[in-house]
Amino acid sequence: YRKKLDAFINLKDLPAETKDGCRVSLKANIEIPEEVDQVLLCGAEGIGLYRSEFLFLTPGKAAEEEYQFDCYSRVLKAMGGMPVTIRTVDIGGDKILPNFQSIDEKNPLLGWRAIRFSLALPALFKTQLRAILRASVFGNVRIMFPLISGIEELEQALALLEEAKEECRKKRQAFAGDIEVGTMIEVPSAAVTSDILAEKSDFFSIGTNDLIQYSLAVDRGNEKVSYLARPLHPAVLRLLKMIIDNAHAKGIKAAMCGEMAGDPLGTALLLGMGLDEFSMSASAIPQIKNIVRGVTIEECRALYEKAKQSASIQENTVLVKSWMAERLPSVII
Amino acid sequence: YRKKLDAFINLKDLPAETKDGCRVSLKANIEIPEEVDQVLLCGAEGIGLYRSEFLFLTPGKAAEEEYQFDCYSRVLKAMGGMPVTIRTVDIGGDKILPNFQSIDEKNPLLGWRAIRFSLALPALFKTQLRAILRASVFGNVRIMFPLISGIEELEQALALLEEAKEECRKKRQAFAGDIEVGTMIEVPSAAVTSDILAEKSDFFSIGTNDLIQYSLAVDRGNEKVSYLARPLHPAVLRLLKMIIDNAHAKGIKAAMCGEMAGDPLGTALLLGMGLDEFSMSASAIPQIKNIVRGVTIEECRALYEKAKQSASIQENTVLVKSWMAERLPSVII
Ligand SMILES: [Mg+2]
Ligand SMILES: [Mg+2]
Repeated sequence: YRKKLDAFINLKDLPAETKDGCRVSLKANIEIPEEVDQVLLCGAEGIGLYRSEFLFLTPGKAAEEEYQFDCYSRVLKAMGGMPVTIRTVDIGGDKILPNFQSIDEKNPLLGWRAIRFSLALPALFKTQLRAILRASVFGNVRIMFPLISGIEELEQALALLEEAKEECRKKRQAFAGDIEVGTMIEVPSAAVTSDILAEKSDFFSIGTNDLIQYSLAVDRGNEKVSYLARPLHPAVLRLLKMIIDNAHAKGIKAAMCGEMAGDPLGTALLLGMGLDEFSMSASAIPQIKNIVRGVTIEECRALYEKAKQSASIQENTVLVKSWMAERLPSVII
Repeated sequence: YRKKLDAFINLKDLPAETKDGCRVSLKANIEIPEEVDQVLLCGAEGIGLYRSEFLFLTPGKAAEEEYQFDCYSRVLKAMGGMPVTIRTVDIGGDKILPNFQSIDEKNPLLGWRAIRFSLALPALFKTQLRAILRASVFGNVRIMFPLISGIEELEQALALLEEAKEECRKKRQAFAGDIEVGTMIEVPSAAVTSDILAEKSDFFSIGTNDLIQYSLAVDRGNEKVSYLARPLHPAVLRLLKMIIDNAHAKGIKAAMCGEMAGDPLGTALLLGMGLDEFSMSASAIPQIKNIVRGVTIEECRALYEKAKQSASIQENTVLVKSWMAERLPSVII
């Protein structure tokens, strides 16, 4: 065990690079500034998903611009120039904001959540955007919008960001000039039109949890049907490949911040598909880095080419498991 | 008005054929046998969707084989050899079966419904399948499975159908030898893998209501977000085209039984995409037939080619509305 721990600690400063030199970026998902220490300890190259819901749920502070500004600034300073990707608030679904949201939706996952909520409450949304803008001078911030279903929503969100910038300028509040703005691809319609969304996005971040839920029409939290929510469903792999290819065709990067990014079962396939960034809970990084460093991009591409021929979840699972067992028998999947 | 009514009655016996001779089939959706009179009156060429939930919700009769057999037989006899497409039970979602289903799902539309319910209760499912098989001797029955998300579910449903056939054979109960079995395409993962599903399907029926809900992550019944559920979203059109093309590539027909099939806004586009069958509420048939007979397939294909270039719902809406206003100004869309 001690030996293993040492190996993991050594791993921290090694790049996430395949044996044949393909470099990817492993980032961390966080919810509160206090997690940054662990993020750095695990060798993350930035934060791929900073969930901002917590800031909206803090009693008494809910959605205050100064409180948000303070939290974002702390994270950005602590990360010392590494990218910090803030997802604008993803309230709704299973996270309810007491003052703003009616809780009587019959299907909250298909309801008033995330960007829909933000676009319906532009003043609140701009409070968050201004807080991010003002914090941007302390580091390398990126913004991403959750649950975009089509180009109209992205355009509206971008227009509100422009308004927020204008408001900062009027108040002579400084912000970085080159903030990247990305689109989360987690609604099937966004995946299917990702070529269109790529035109107005600086990067994509794939939210596999929601993408799988919607693509398969399954609430993962419902134990009667959660067995259906499988990342190796051929439809999921096809959608992922479509998203990644559409990103690259427009010269932008494809990141992933859903659970699949930290699942050893998916790593080789995702490498083979060309994913650029994997964001996961910090503690998963060493294991995923270990896999990345243990394979060649060439064999990962060959694995993906095989998976492409497969018609079922079952076939894909057998394929990936035996592939992993052959190459990386120590990885438990 | 009188003149209009006469025209519609004349229309009843005319084929649903474009001006340049492309024939499609207009069918009706029904819920109870009593609707058949109106179906025939409106000139339907069969039933494209016979919803069987009603049979499961009738107090005292719920899911009884003899009761189902009786209802199916009546419909088949009344339709006199025209195809009658029975959808196996689509319980769950917004239709709750008191004795079988817990009602505490947080997201019933993403829950234990339709084929998931049937596969989990094979005895109940086979009761329905046997009732359909036995009724098949009275007409031209087709079976279709709702909410298929992948090939495994389709294979399981087909295996249970084989068991039901074997059970009928053992009891020396006759059934037709050539019953077509189709797959409903209404889950995004089914659309995206429709090439795989086509291998084991005799036809497709596209359920646009659910397909749109899941593809856009929207509960149509939720008034806070229902504005997003738009059939002219570019992603919806792409998925529809993919389904139709995958059906044709395998030599099977693509039908549609969701609301879009009876919506004048969609008719020309769907013709242009190559849809073979439109199933709708009987009362919508005259209007849709009128549109079909008022256009050429060539101009519909050109319309679709234009829509393919469009990036937004808004563009598509303007395009289709102006196209219709030019050619069929009397149709209100
Ligand atoms: Mg999400
Ligand atoms: Mg449906």
